[in-house]
Amino acid sequence: MLSLWVIIACGALSLVYGIWAFQSVMAQPAGNARMQEIAGFVREGAQAYLRRQYVTISGVGIIIFALVAYFLSIPSAIGFLIGAVLSGLAGFIGMNMSVRANVRTAQAAMNSLGQGLEVAFKAGAVTGMLVAGLALLGVAVYYYVLTGPMQLSFADPKQAREIIDSLVALGFGASLISIFARLGGGIFTKGADVGGDLVGKVEAGIPEDDPRNPATIADNVGDNVGDCAGMAADLFETYAVTVVATMVLAAILFAGTPVLSNVLLYPLGIGAACIVTSIVGTFFVKLGANQSIMGALYKGFIASAVLSVAGLAVATHFLIGWGSIGTIGGHDVTGTSLFACGIVGLVVTGLIVWITEYYTGIGYRPVREISQASVTGHGTNVIQGLAVSLEATALPTIVIVAGIVATYTLAGLFGTAIAVTTMLGLAGMVVALDAFGPVTDNAGGIAEMAGLPKEVRKSTDALDAVGNTTKAVTKGYAIGSAGLGALVLFAAYTSDLAYFSSNSAQYPYFAGVQPNFSLANPFVVVGLLLGGLIPYLFGGIAMTAVGKAASAIVEEVRRQFREKPGIMQGTDKPDYGKAVDLLTRAAIKEMLIPSLLPVLSPIVIYFLVLWITGSKSDAFAAVGAMLLGVIVTGLFVAISMTAGGGAWDNAKKSFEDGFIDANGTKHLKGSEAHKASVTGDTVGDPYKDTAGPAVNPAIKITNIVALLLLAILAHH
Amino acid sequence: MLSLWVIIACGALSLVYGIWAFQSVMAQPAGNARMQEIAGFVREGAQAYLRRQYVTISGVGIIIFALVAYFLSIPSAIGFLIGAVLSGLAGFIGMNMSVRANVRTAQAAMNSLGQGLEVAFKAGAVTGMLVAGLALLGVAVYYYVLTGPMQLSFADPKQAREIIDSLVALGFGASLISIFARLGGGIFTKGADVGGDLVGKVEAGIPEDDPRNPATIADNVGDNVGDCAGMAADLFETYAVTVVATMVLAAILFAGTPVLSNVLLYPLGIGAACIVTSIVGTFFVKLGANQSIMGALYKGFIASAVLSVAGLAVATHFLIGWGSIGTIGGHDVTGTSLFACGIVGLVVTGLIVWITEYYTGIGYRPVREISQASVTGHGTNVIQGLAVSLEATALPTIVIVAGIVATYTLAGLFGTAIAVTTMLGLAGMVVALDAFGPVTDNAGGIAEMAGLPKEVRKSTDALDAVGNTTKAVTKGYAIGSAGLGALVLFAAYTSDLAYFSSNSAQYPYFAGVQPNFSLANPFVVVGLLLGGLIPYLFGGIAMTAVGKAASAIVEEVRRQFREKPGIMQGTDKPDYGKAVDLLTRAAIKEMLIPSLLPVLSPIVIYFLVLWITGSKSDAFAAVGAMLLGVIVTGLFVAISMTAGGGAWDNAKKSFEDGFIDANGTKHLKGSEAHKASVTGDTVGDPYKDTAGPAVNPAIKITNIVALLLLAILAHH
Repeated sequence: MLSLWVIIACGALSLVYGIWAFQSVMAQPAGNARMQEIAGFVREGAQAYLRRQYVTISGVGIIIFALVAYFLSIPSAIGFLIGAVLSGLAGFIGMNMSVRANVRTAQAAMNSLGQGLEVAFKAGAVTGMLVAGLALLGVAVYYYVLTGPMQLSFADPKQAREIIDSLVALGFGASLISIFARLGGGIFTKGADVGGDLVGKVEAGIPEDDPRNPATIADNVGDNVGDCAGMAADLFETYAVTVVATMVLAAILFAGTPVLSNVLLYPLGIGAACIVTSIVGTFFVKLGANQSIMGALYKGFIASAVLSVAGLAVATHFLIGWGSIGTIGGHDVTGTSLFACGIVGLVVTGLIVWITEYYTGIGYRPVREISQASVTGHGTNVIQGLAVSLEATALPTIVIVAGIVATYTLAGLFGTAIAVTTMLGLAGMVVALDAFGPVTDNAGGIAEMAGLPKEVRKSTDALDAVGNTTKAVTKGYAIGSAGLGALVLFAAYTSDLAYFSSNSAQYPYFAGVQPNFSLANPFVVVGLLLGGLIPYLFGGIAMTAVGKAASAIVEEVRRQFREKPGIMQGTDKPDYGKAVDLLTRAAIKEMLIPSLLPVLSPIVIYFLVLWITGSKSDAFAAVGAMLLGVIVTGLFVAISMTAGGGAWDNAKKSFEDGFIDANGTKHLKGSEAHKASVTGDTVGDPYKDTAGPAVNPAIKITNIVALLLLAILAHH
Repeated sequence: MLSLWVIIACGALSLVYGIWAFQSVMAQPAGNARMQEIAGFVREGAQAYLRRQYVTISGVGIIIFALVAYFLSIPSAIGFLIGAVLSGLAGFIGMNMSVRANVRTAQAAMNSLGQGLEVAFKAGAVTGMLVAGLALLGVAVYYYVLTGPMQLSFADPKQAREIIDSLVALGFGASLISIFARLGGGIFTKGADVGGDLVGKVEAGIPEDDPRNPATIADNVGDNVGDCAGMAADLFETYAVTVVATMVLAAILFAGTPVLSNVLLYPLGIGAACIVTSIVGTFFVKLGANQSIMGALYKGFIASAVLSVAGLAVATHFLIGWGSIGTIGGHDVTGTSLFACGIVGLVVTGLIVWITEYYTGIGYRPVREISQASVTGHGTNVIQGLAVSLEATALPTIVIVAGIVATYTLAGLFGTAIAVTTMLGLAGMVVALDAFGPVTDNAGGIAEMAGLPKEVRKSTDALDAVGNTTKAVTKGYAIGSAGLGALVLFAAYTSDLAYFSSNSAQYPYFAGVQPNFSLANPFVVVGLLLGGLIPYLFGGIAMTAVGKAASAIVEEVRRQFREKPGIMQGTDKPDYGKAVDLLTRAAIKEMLIPSLLPVLSPIVIYFLVLWITGSKSDAFAAVGAMLLGVIVTGLFVAISMTAGGGAWDNAKKSFEDGFIDANGTKHLKGSEAHKASVTGDTVGDPYKDTAGPAVNPAIKITNIVALLLLAILAHH
């Protein structure tokens, strides 16, 4: 129990850090009246959106809460509630920090670049630490409640299932928030961005963030609800479900062995250790003499990663020791081999960060090729961007494959789970790097709208450019970890199923169930194809939704320009709230149906196949294959979309300082080549910020719903 | 033996039809001197390209021939040669017909639309019937040679393997031509199209097919080498490998039973019957009173499909009868159930044709949404096109899944194989519909360049528009059948492997090999991911290759315009040959490396996993999963690309008659919305004509190489 208390204390430390950092940001000067007025609009819009989103999710959530309570148990329903509320809370606090830090970053940037960086990063770190901390605390405290006060024990198989079910339901709660937040936030932010750019930059010829554009506040609101709250919910979910899935695997693989209770705490211990190292890492983020912002951020990231090796060693030493803890599937699992798996997780993280930067960073071949292709027009820009997006899947896939082979060879399935858990240990730091982005983006917008001196905008632009890279890198990390986390969930599904069918005396529903997961089984092929379809269909719907939202914004802004001609002369004020309201409505409406697609698919497929063949085994095989199908195509769809979108974005940016093409001609901002690059950027927007990232939660939620389905069937 | 002779006679009938149709087209007047001159340029260019392509492939082919002869056997090497030569021959004759029919179609269109249609369709039918006929003849005659004169018998297991290996090698020969022809032809045609449009339409402001554009002949050459020869090789391959894979399955599943020899002939019999019905179907293609070209073509297609039901019944009746022929995997297989599976294959074909037309046809929601999105700019056009491309995968996947479930339920694995075989029975008709496209496209180009009266261009434009739809529909069919055919190949892989390991006394390499194809095996996950990567990487490389080829064309045309200012005034002649030559070089160079990716992948993965784990079982499991991974993502990548590209193409066309948007505004050719739609069309070009279709052979070749790998390992 002492270990569990230490783990909970580490989780609590993140809250302490969060409160301290929040207050420290709030103590900064909030700028002049005009800046505060603008920031106020953004804050109100963001809060209004989040309120509406949470109200809608609550509606769905209450129904699911009742279903879980009815079909499973009250503790599971409470677990679901904890997961949902904490995930929502992390997003809520993070976004509230973000919309207060933006104006303070703008103000701090008036003094120096370093001060601007400090405020923005500290604000990002609030979100980051809360994501990791609340996720860890949620799982750890509820695990304590279940095994302590509620006196459930793993020694009793029935009670063991109760614990597992409750934790899986917690993961499901987090998943539900995540898919809505990612998709709704993504539609809002890119609807505003694409629509605002089309009607502002292209039609009216006014620059980005011009206060005369009625969509400009909505665009800034979008940064907060999409990149901040959406990403926070996504990584909260991956964190929670991966830790839970690793615990489920441990509970099955080490059932009845004396090490069980400590092995169960091991993933929590890794998370706890990494939270401490991430907090320490934040203090390494300091602008050096070379004024490299990216360098400052990487210092923090590398410090966290290196310290995490020590943290991992501490967790291993105190929880499971270095010797053998059992034999799983022919693999002798030792503390040393699991430690090595953790290191593999850290190496995979590092490689994915590096690969993503290569594919999306200015100065490397992929982005340069897109810039070059812009010289021959819109069409070739998009063709080359698509080529890069397809190609960008190769190296991450190879890294993930190498990670699977290495960890499996070291310590079997459980080794892979520990690697992913360690990978996610860095989530606090990575989210901090990401949540820094919308703050600086907003700061730039406020500086522009408030008419601050040009140097301020230059500082915030420098911060914003780095924010774009960190956002891309975080997405690579989020997808890689989601894919690997989903594989752990999938392993939990097959292990759970094997457990139920070999104990069919207790679980009569599973009597005679012998699912044939062989690829030679046509229902496995069918499941793979149907699973593979989900990311495609989901992505297609998300892209359409952004297009619709953007068109609505274009119409609205045109209407305002038409009805209030004074707006363009600066004598009349645009109605910012109308655009925010319109997008809120559109995003909430468009997110509902597609979100239910991955949630309902496993259930529908199961009962459909059962109805056709009458064989539970075939139905379970089809569902299992579906889970893997979602992971396989989901990984490719998500990586290609986010990498391609990031590359298009930076190809456009490469024209801002003038792009020198293969013939030595320099193309500046406003040139035809630059215009072509803007088209690519517009296409990349929903690719990288709506459809691509929303595939992450879709992958995970399909897997976790399948786990819950098993639990419910076992319960009856 | 009588049955086999009847089958061979039916195959020969297609050659008779081909010769008759060829002569009948050649008997048509070839137009005036200017038309003949232009057609001569196109013909020379196409022949030069094909010559160069075949020389290059021969180089690779000779090496592979030697490898097959050395590692496997002389009969296998000869099989490889037959497959390669016949596939090449079908493309060669088809293209030679196409480049002679184009000018005759233009001339015939001067008389009437109906006459133009007749000439163009008859030319397409030459390619179509040769593809189906030569593929059938190749397999049937070589099967006769192996089992007749060479006296190999299925009664002797060793001789049975010799027969199977030789037929698989024949499929591999076809595959090799196919992947090169698809990719090389695709790069050529879209490099010319994209490059020519960019520099002609956009920069110089001259219309398509303007004789002043030095890339215009290359564009017309491209239609022939890509859409005609490339498609012919692709469907020749699918036809050959599917028939072979079905025979391999029959040989394994019905080994030692009295029905074996007749069941082996059954797929050949289905092919033979459908060739006859396809030939009859061609005579139903007649322009009705309503002057609907599409209606005329569909009449032929529907006639073939309906008659094929009767053909299928005849083949079933005479070859296997209607009663039980054995029990496979718990399924009682009867002639009736296999007949029903064949009907399922025809229904799947019909549904895929219908779905593809919905997603790519003017007048339906998807294309209308893209047209509407063009109104708000280039970016939204591309976003909506991508959304449509993603969404378009859903219905075909569901149809394919339903087909698999239905046929498996009816008659197990062999039922699925028979369904695909029947589906491919219609290949002759479908290729005829497709090969009709480049002929009319060329006819329009010749009419434009030769300055024929406007009414001629109007007729050829009407034919061309229909050609675009039939091309899209054929691609849907090609991909659906390739995916299903690959599943049959995959079934052959697992069956073969099971056969070898259960007979390890004869095949000592397979002693103790017990591959675990379960999804719970990490090497299966690894294989799925690596296989899934192939279509992405391959597609990315293909897109880049088109971009590069197009850029080279842009530079070349700019150079000609600069050095010969008389070209634009019409006083100087452009150097058409230079552009053709440049594209030939680029296409051949760029096709080599990516083509080897799917060829070498199974071999590399096998030996890599074997080297890492030391376990043949793990290595075979990884390769097997890789095959399925290629099929799963390949299906989605190929369908999304071809459907999306077709939809973009027709969205652009919708502006030619004026597109009325949601607000009631009419957008004409030359409007901003139309320009945005041109961008989408440019993006869609390599999507639908290079990367997407080239994924088909990539899927199949990976699977057939894996089969060959097994054969080689068994041989040693």
